[in-house]
Amino acid sequence: MFRNQYDTDVTTWSPAGRLFQVEYAMEAVKQGSAAIGLRSKTHVVLACVNKSNSELSSHQKKIFKADDHIGVAIAGLTADGRVLSRYMRSECINYSYSYESPLPVGRLVVQLADKAQVCTQRSWKRPYGVGLLVAGLDESGAHLYYNCPSGNYFEYQAFAIGSRSQAAKTYLERKFESFSSSSRENLLKDALFAIRETLQGERLTSSICTVAVLGVGEAFQILDQKTVQALIDAFEIAGEEAPAAEGDAPAPDLGAAEPGPAADQGPPAQPDIAPMDI
Amino acid sequence: MFRNQYDTDVTTWSPAGRLFQVEYAMEAVKQGSAAIGLRSKTHVVLACVNKSNSELSSHQKKIFKADDHIGVAIAGLTADGRVLSRYMRSECINYSYSYESPLPVGRLVVQLADKAQVCTQRSWKRPYGVGLLVAGLDESGAHLYYNCPSGNYFEYQAFAIGSRSQAAKTYLERKFESFSSSSRENLLKDALFAIRETLQGERLTSSICTVAVLGVGEAFQILDQKTVQALIDAFEIAGEEAPAAEGDAPAPDLGAAEPGPAADQGPPAQPDIAPMDI
Amino acid sequence: MFRNQYDTDVTTWSPAGRLFQVEYAMEAVKQGSAAIGLRSKTHVVLACVNKSNSELSSHQKKIFKADDHIGVAIAGLTADGRVLSRYMRSECINYSYSYESPLPVGRLVVQLADKAQVCTQRSWKRPYGVGLLVAGLDESGAHLYYNCPSGNYFEYQAFAIGSRSQAAKTYLERKFESFSSSSRENLLKDALFAIRETLQGERLTSSICTVAVLGVGEAFQILDQKTVQALIDAFEIAGEEAPAAEGDAPAPDLGAAEPGPAADQGPPAQPDIAPMDI
Amino acid sequence: MFRNQYDTDVTTWSPAGRLFQVEYAMEAVKQGSAAIGLRSKTHVVLACVNKSNSELSSHQKKIFKADDHIGVAIAGLTADGRVLSRYMRSECINYSYSYESPLPVGRLVVQLADKAQVCTQRSWKRPYGVGLLVAGLDESGAHLYYNCPSGNYFEYQAFAIGSRSQAAKTYLERKFESFSSSSRENLLKDALFAIRETLQGERLTSSICTVAVLGVGEAFQILDQKTVQALIDAFEIAGEEAPAAEGDAPAPDLGAAEPGPAADQGPPAQPDIAPMDI
Amino acid sequence: MFRNQYDTDVTTWSPAGRLFQVEYAMEAVKQGSAAIGLRSKTHVVLACVNKSNSELSSHQKKIFKADDHIGVAIAGLTADGRVLSRYMRSECINYSYSYESPLPVGRLVVQLADKAQVCTQRSWKRPYGVGLLVAGLDESGAHLYYNCPSGNYFEYQAFAIGSRSQAAKTYLERKFESFSSSSRENLLKDALFAIRETLQGERLTSSICTVAVLGVGEAFQILDQKTVQALIDAFEIAGEEAPAAEGDAPAPDLGAAEPGPAADQGPPAQPDIAPMDI
Amino acid sequence: MFRNQYDTDVTTWSPAGRLFQVEYAMEAVKQGSAAIGLRSKTHVVLACVNKSNSELSSHQKKIFKADDHIGVAIAGLTADGRVLSRYMRSECINYSYSYESPLPVGRLVVQLADKAQVCTQRSWKRPYGVGLLVAGLDESGAHLYYNCPSGNYFEYQAFAIGSRSQAAKTYLERKFESFSSSSRENLLKDALFAIRETLQGERLTSSICTVAVLGVGEAFQILDQKTVQALIDAFEIAGEEAPAAEGDAPAPDLGAAEPGPAADQGPPAQPDIAPMDI
Amino acid sequence: MFRNQYDTDVTTWSPAGRLFQVEYAMEAVKQGSAAIGLRSKTHVVLACVNKSNSELSSHQKKIFKADDHIGVAIAGLTADGRVLSRYMRSECINYSYSYESPLPVGRLVVQLADKAQVCTQRSWKRPYGVGLLVAGLDESGAHLYYNCPSGNYFEYQAFAIGSRSQAAKTYLERKFESFSSSSRENLLKDALFAIRETLQGERLTSSICTVAVLGVGEAFQILDQKTVQALIDAFEIAGEEAPAAEGDAPAPDLGAAEPGPAADQGPPAQPDIAPMDI
Repeated sequence: MFRNQYDTDVTTWSPAGRLFQVEYAMEAVKQGSAAIGLRSKTHVVLACVNKSNSELSSHQKKIFKADDHIGVAIAGLTADGRVLSRYMRSECINYSYSYESPLPVGRLVVQLADKAQVCTQRSWKRPYGVGLLVAGLDESGAHLYYNCPSGNYFEYQAFAIGSRSQAAKTYLERKFESFSSSSRENLLKDALFAIRETLQGERLTSSICTVAVLGVGEAFQILDQKTVQALIDAFEIAGEEAPAAEGDAPAPDLGAAEPGPAADQGPPAQPDIAPMDI
Repeated sequence: MFRNQYDTDVTTWSPAGRLFQVEYAMEAVKQGSAAIGLRSKTHVVLACVNKSNSELSSHQKKIFKADDHIGVAIAGLTADGRVLSRYMRSECINYSYSYESPLPVGRLVVQLADKAQVCTQRSWKRPYGVGLLVAGLDESGAHLYYNCPSGNYFEYQAFAIGSRSQAAKTYLERKFESFSSSSRENLLKDALFAIRETLQGERLTSSICTVAVLGVGEAFQILDQKTVQALIDAFEIAGEEAPAAEGDAPAPDLGAAEPGPAADQGPPAQPDIAPMDI
Repeated sequence: MFRNQYDTDVTTWSPAGRLFQVEYAMEAVKQGSAAIGLRSKTHVVLACVNKSNSELSSHQKKIFKADDHIGVAIAGLTADGRVLSRYMRSECINYSYSYESPLPVGRLVVQLADKAQVCTQRSWKRPYGVGLLVAGLDESGAHLYYNCPSGNYFEYQAFAIGSRSQAAKTYLERKFESFSSSSRENLLKDALFAIRETLQGERLTSSICTVAVLGVGEAFQILDQKTVQALIDAFEIAGEEAPAAEGDAPAPDLGAAEPGPAADQGPPAQPDIAPMDI
Repeated sequence: MFRNQYDTDVTTWSPAGRLFQVEYAMEAVKQGSAAIGLRSKTHVVLACVNKSNSELSSHQKKIFKADDHIGVAIAGLTADGRVLSRYMRSECINYSYSYESPLPVGRLVVQLADKAQVCTQRSWKRPYGVGLLVAGLDESGAHLYYNCPSGNYFEYQAFAIGSRSQAAKTYLERKFESFSSSSRENLLKDALFAIRETLQGERLTSSICTVAVLGVGEAFQILDQKTVQALIDAFEIAGEEAPAAEGDAPAPDLGAAEPGPAADQGPPAQPDIAPMDI
Repeated sequence: MFRNQYDTDVTTWSPAGRLFQVEYAMEAVKQGSAAIGLRSKTHVVLACVNKSNSELSSHQKKIFKADDHIGVAIAGLTADGRVLSRYMRSECINYSYSYESPLPVGRLVVQLADKAQVCTQRSWKRPYGVGLLVAGLDESGAHLYYNCPSGNYFEYQAFAIGSRSQAAKTYLERKFESFSSSSRENLLKDALFAIRETLQGERLTSSICTVAVLGVGEAFQILDQKTVQALIDAFEIAGEEAPAAEGDAPAPDLGAAEPGPAADQGPPAQPDIAPMDI
Repeated sequence: MFRNQYDTDVTTWSPAGRLFQVEYAMEAVKQGSAAIGLRSKTHVVLACVNKSNSELSSHQKKIFKADDHIGVAIAGLTADGRVLSRYMRSECINYSYSYESPLPVGRLVVQLADKAQVCTQRSWKRPYGVGLLVAGLDESGAHLYYNCPSGNYFEYQAFAIGSRSQAAKTYLERKFESFSSSSRENLLKDALFAIRETLQGERLTSSICTVAVLGVGEAFQILDQKTVQALIDAFEIAGEEAPAAEGDAPAPDLGAAEPGPAADQGPPAQPDIAPMDI
Repeated sequence: MFRNQYDTDVTTWSPAGRLFQVEYAMEAVKQGSAAIGLRSKTHVVLACVNKSNSELSSHQKKIFKADDHIGVAIAGLTADGRVLSRYMRSECINYSYSYESPLPVGRLVVQLADKAQVCTQRSWKRPYGVGLLVAGLDESGAHLYYNCPSGNYFEYQAFAIGSRSQAAKTYLERKFESFSSSSRENLLKDALFAIRETLQGERLTSSICTVAVLGVGEAFQILDQKTVQALIDAFEIAGEEAPAAEGDAPAPDLGAAEPGPAADQGPPAQPDIAPMDI
């Protein structure tokens, strides 16, 4: 009934000093399927949940390699994420061509953030609807950044974004103190456990998640499905699932409250498919 | 009565993080006549339903050849589809002229998707209103992609889009496990069966469908009507039709619910003709 | 009372995936005076109804020559049609100057369609309000195309557009099977009969119609009024008119229902004159 | 109460396929003081009614010479008309400079019409608010065209535009069959009689009309006031006036109904002065 | 209550063919302090009323010299008038530099009018809010033009614009027949009498008016205050004032009705100061 | 309740010929802290009231030097004033570089006014929200101008702008006849007395005002605080304050009525701080 | 219910001469976490409160080094602040490259302010949503400036901005008289005490604040966490906290009233996280 006159134009401030269109774009990140990242001193692991439109299709690719030392996992509008990850790739190539050394991670992250900020200050554009977890390794060590539609970025020890990411965040917060000195294996294990937390009782298999790793002496690589399944089996993660799901039972309610500050008046979302992201 | 203030401008986010204008453009794909695609390791088959304005006209062309190794079937706004398919053709020519080798399929699909993404982030444009099933064959094998108005793309084993495509999808899901090792003939047979599923009791004849095939040692070609009729007759597809239509009887209801998340308040569509697509 | 918020901007999709502004532009074609086209293997005939503002003026020209092998008849906004037909003329000249051969008909039709499509995807333009029947003859034979404001085009054996064209279409559908092998004379006869169907009891004379013909060994020409009257007399078309008009008596009602999906709330059209087209 | 949402933007189609802004610009022509034109095989005569703001001013110039062989009379927005007539002048000069021959009349008329059409298809412009009667003489004979704000043009034997032009049109329709072979003198006489019809009982004098003539061997010239008065006296036109005015008595009522399809809700026009045209 | 939807955008036509924004700009001329002009065969006199913001300031300059043979008096938005008068000055300089002869008056007036017309046909501009009385002398004699915000211009024997100009116009109409052969002195006398008519009982002194003269053998000059006072005294104009003011008593009422076709709903104008013009 | 539809766009005229957005920008000048100027034949003095955000900050600079012979005091939006004063500085430098002589004051004032006028005629800009008192000395003597957001400028003997400037204007009007032949000292004294009038009972000290002087043989300089305090003490201005404040008691009411023609419906201004100007 | 029509567009003035969009952007500064600055004759200290999204992330960086002699602390939209601080860095580099001397602080501050002013005068941009405390040292001594979204800047002895900054301002006002001659240590101590005032009972530790110092002979440096903790311990600041929090008990209420002039009608802010700033 009360129409908010400050929330349809990205260049309009609300009386309380907020940019609603930017906040709404951040909601798009929450609607995407979950992505997580965590790092030790030497390694970074990214993982994400794959949702398929149907049995007929492979899943949308949500983890991308930018260079041997940089990779990214996205949540939100996949098309926006793909465009930004290709920008990252081309920046990496240009830099190493010009300077004959790899592009420092922090520098790329700032460039990404500036690209996003511009979209929050022009009336004929819209903020990007995607969050990016950037994993990188350079002379200053292993890094994990989160780039947000607002043009902000943050450095994290571990982080989770996207749908039902709260459960994963809780898991990571409980464990993060050990990550810094964690082995590659343990990072992978924790990544898979964190991903499982977002599944709401669904059984974790290699077909519904993608895992990538980057480390000292190890270029960024997306693990093949067999390797991932072997890890799941080795860690006996899937087996723990059913009780864990029970323990998480109240989580869905919390998740249901999460979708956004206000229900849209538009056509209802189809329950089984996120409209622009899978 | 309640006006949705977030759904008329492609650069406006809704409070829940959705871009309604992009979703509405995806509805245009659902309104187009059906198109399907399926692939084995060596072949890809595209097929679509032809609807004619009247006896006087030939049907609108909805399957296009981009190059010897790439073809596309569209559903939705035909004019948008034609513009995009010509873009594909010209990219193929330019690439083979510059590199003296065929343009890799995945690369063209990404370029197409980026072209679509740009139209979702400029206030003075509109998202394309067409879905494209891209069939291709390159060094990495046979491919089938679906490019969506949102700027997303997906790789599929088999897929169906457009009006009443749900029945075809159900058929393809039941069968898809065998497609990978299927012969060229069986792919064609399944394509025709899938197309028949979308016809709601109408008899399948070569005049109401177009079929194209691409495979190892076989450039993309649209089969002539005689060949298609011969296949229909050989597979005895048309004959099975009547009972199949009965089995599908409840499908129309389901189809009737499908048209869109909300009925427009505008002038009613004329029942016998889709306004911009045939 | 219920305002349609999706139908004033050409770049706005409706929730059901329609572009109302494009559909409204297609209504402008229906408001124009009728034009028809039909073809045999060797000839194409175009014809249209001329309406004069008053006794004092000659009628608006609605059939244009683009080149010796291409001509066009329009219905709808005459100014838009003139601008497009001049575009056709200049494309023909440029092509034959560059390649020393006539521009293939299908190629010109696609260029025309693309020009129209662009106007459906820019917020500061409007779709053209004119339909074009393009007659052409090239190495692949005689052609008849219909170019629509939506950016679509269709190939036809015979077609009629504009005000009260339904009666002509019915006539053409009854006869079209014979057109393919029809003689030049018979095509002209059928064209005049079809035109007469759109007149609602008015007597057909050479002063209220224009007829053009294009064929093997015969450059596109608009027949002079005397020749047309001679044909009318020879075929005794005008004489059959009165009873035909009676038989068509219910047609006006049908025609009255035709004008558009919704009555405008604006000032009423003056009954005796279509505002921008005669 | 019911607001027409389709009539404020020149690039918005109404549901019935009309462009209201173009039609409203055509209303501006009807509000201007009357202009008439008529032609024989060898001569064209233009005439218009002059209205003065006050005794203090000369009247606005409404007949312009474009070249020795082309002249124009306008009705509607005088400023728009002046800009367009200067465009005509400059096109004539450029053509004769380049080709050393006079610009064909029909060609100039098409260029004018295209200039007007562009203003009906750009959201940041407005259609011209002026009608132009173009008189010309070239190798193909004497011509009279009417160029309309819609971008249309028409060739006429005789025509009248502007305020109360219906009475002049009626006069011209009664007489036009003789115009073709009329002498220069008779054309002038009919022009003055036609102008008198638009005066609603006012006495015709040389001070309230302008007359121009163009013919074989006679460059376009605007007759001086003395010559015009001599013609009025010679033809005894002014003397017939009073009874004619009586015969025209019902015309004002008809004229009063003429102003436009809908009364504006804006401030009322001041009765004694047309706001932008005199 | 009834909102006029056609009067906020300069490129929107009303249903009756009017451009309200242009008419509203013409209202701004009526709000400015009065300016008058009159001419004989050899001389032109311009005069205007000066209103001061306060005792502390000199009055705004409202008569400008463009060249030795051209001057201008303005009424309305002073800033717009100043910009246009500087344009006139620069055109005069450029012309005499290029052609070594003075710019013909009529030509400058047309250029001015065209500059104003452009502002009535672009959605991102506004019509100028100023009227200009242009006095000039060239080979064709002495001229007085009025340039209006609409892009129109008129040639006058004598004219008055601005606030309460009706009384001055009445005076000029009573006398204008003698102006043509008037002496320089008598023109000045009539100018001062006409100015006095606009004062509503205020005493005419040299401090509240500016007078300029241009004539054969006399470059355009603004008379100094002493000369003006001497004229006032010589003609005994000020002395006649009181009774004249009485005779004008009903005029203020008439003047009060004059301000505009509709009262604005905005904040009331402060009675003692015209907001943008003095 | 009644919404004014003519006052949100700078390019929209109201029916009565007003530009409300320009008038509203003029209100911003009234909201700024007061500035005054006065001149004799040889000197110009500028003074303004300084308001500090808090004890912690120095006050905003509101008097600027443009060149040795030109200075400016501003009231209104400080940021706009700073941008314009830097424009003045750069124009002065460029002129003296090109012509090796100081830029005439009147010429700079016109350039400033034109810069302001442009902002009143473009839909994508806004009028400047600042008034400028320009003090200058050149071959034609000492000058004081007021440049207004409307693009107007005025020459003054003495003037006051900004919050509660009415009291200062009253003081200046009572005294101005003596200014012309005033000594430098007396000008300074009157400047300080005028400033005190705007203080509403607050005690005048050197910390709450800035004073600048320019004269024959004396480049524009802002007096240091010590000098100003010495003047205040010498003239015993501060001591007269308390009774003066009583005499001014009704002034605040008058001042309270002054803020603007209409109260905004927006959030209330915080009483202790003008939002964009201090 | 009453909609403010003047507060959604940065180029629209309110009737009272305010630019609401600029004021709203200033609210964004108030929503950011607190930043403070203070200076002696030789040193400047900046400090800010760090808020972390979660345990998993490091805090957002809010103090930046522009050059050895210039640093900046921000409050408000972090992305805008980062973009502006990088602009500062690049200006410093360019200047010292061109002139081989450090960029004067005041000059950089003016450039920053002009960059902000431009964003308040273009309809397609928005004002920056960030306040900047600029610390600098140059030949004219140590400086502390505050740059505001309005394009204004102020020089301060000490200042605090952002959420709950009022308590810090009160502290600084009580002490500021001693700052000018304060030692480096005492400045640091006062900075930490002022920061503690903004914490509302939270214990001050080095992990929740950042401190930077710049002085004669000491390049701008951000102190490492260990150094900061040592200072906190040395000054026994944290220990005083609990009672101070009690003394501040009413402050939260005051703080709660602070957020803005009007509550937004949009979705409520999540209490534990400022949407675009941490």
